[in-house]
Amino acid sequence: MSSPLIQSLIEAFQVLPGVGPKSAQRMAFYLLERNRNGASRLADVLRDAVQNVGHCESCRTLTEEKVCQICASNHRDATLLCVVESPADIAVIEASGAFNGKYFVLMGHLSPIDGIGPAELGLELLEARLDKEPIQELIVATNPTVEGEATAHYIQQLADKYSVTVSRPAQGIPVGGELEYLDSSTLSQAFLSRKQLL
Amino acid sequence: MSSPLIQSLIEAFQVLPGVGPKSAQRMAFYLLERNRNGASRLADVLRDAVQNVGHCESCRTLTEEKVCQICASNHRDATLLCVVESPADIAVIEASGAFNGKYFVLMGHLSPIDGIGPAELGLELLEARLDKEPIQELIVATNPTVEGEATAHYIQQLADKYSVTVSRPAQGIPVGGELEYLDSSTLSQAFLSRKQLL
Ligand SMILES: [Zn+2]
Ligand SMILES: [Zn+2]
Repeated sequence: MSSPLIQSLIEAFQVLPGVGPKSAQRMAFYLLERNRNGASRLADVLRDAVQNVGHCESCRTLTEEKVCQICASNHRDATLLCVVESPADIAVIEASGAFNGKYFVLMGHLSPIDGIGPAELGLELLEARLDKEPIQELIVATNPTVEGEATAHYIQQLADKYSVTVSRPAQGIPVGGELEYLDSSTLSQAFLSRKQLL
Repeated sequence: MSSPLIQSLIEAFQVLPGVGPKSAQRMAFYLLERNRNGASRLADVLRDAVQNVGHCESCRTLTEEKVCQICASNHRDATLLCVVESPADIAVIEASGAFNGKYFVLMGHLSPIDGIGPAELGLELLEARLDKEPIQELIVATNPTVEGEATAHYIQQLADKYSVTVSRPAQGIPVGGELEYLDSSTLSQAFLSRKQLL
């Protein structure tokens, strides 16, 4: 490489998921040769996001506001609370149009080996909401993986103290799959035929 | 999406080649959830590169210096000049270790329909170098595509005025292929068995 700065850029692009040395080089040359405006905009927005995106005080999702737009909305059903593992899960559920309640984002799942317990998932905040808000049904939409199921089970027990129905989207989510990659109709079906945990 | 800023970031990532809405969303969430240091560094280096990377005054490749490291080097054979279409081609030729001369980068190929003629490819600068520098052989390593061949033919005629041998890497480059994606050994072979244009 005839330029240390371009070499640094190629290395920097490799922090992106799924981007190896070859794709990173292609990205660097493409932006510098053909789309400097797009590159400038990406640099600016990325800087802005890193500095200003934090977590919603109510649902823990990523947002630049103190409280995210969904939590702040008056047009969402406050009696329904959907628990998901990540902000990407909210995106896919919103795209399905199957749900008009509010969310709670764990930002992960229980994983004792990684030191991720109830505190790391913000479950005290979830309990506080179950205690104070008019929530009637808690839909636990963690991933149908071993960790996601264990997390759902833990949340179900935790919710027993409150007068709330606990359900889990059932039909259509492939076992071992990841919510983030599902199509809207599968997810719609899963929400429609959710079943109450006993 | 519960955050306009994250939505902007997802759109900004889609300027990258091969990155659609889904990958862009994955990149945005990954960086914000798990690698803010990497995101900061990417934003900084990208900003730096957009502001400071220009073209080498001698070979036209992308560089943050007035003259790139290869052009400035005393350890390269100044009697050999290799003409390529893009900076990425230099990277792959350097990786092959098959060439120790200097380069000239067209930053494209002749394409009258797109308004790209000899001036846009810097061919006056190339002629000035053929005129003043001790170049004995000009290796025209444009892509073996229709446009690349036409460009090579034009450069061959242009070089006729100067006492220089004109060659073209021959063996091993798949017809219709792109230099940038070749493996080192194929490219090595192509350089070793280059043939003189008649
Ligand atoms: Zn929120
Ligand atoms: Zn140079």
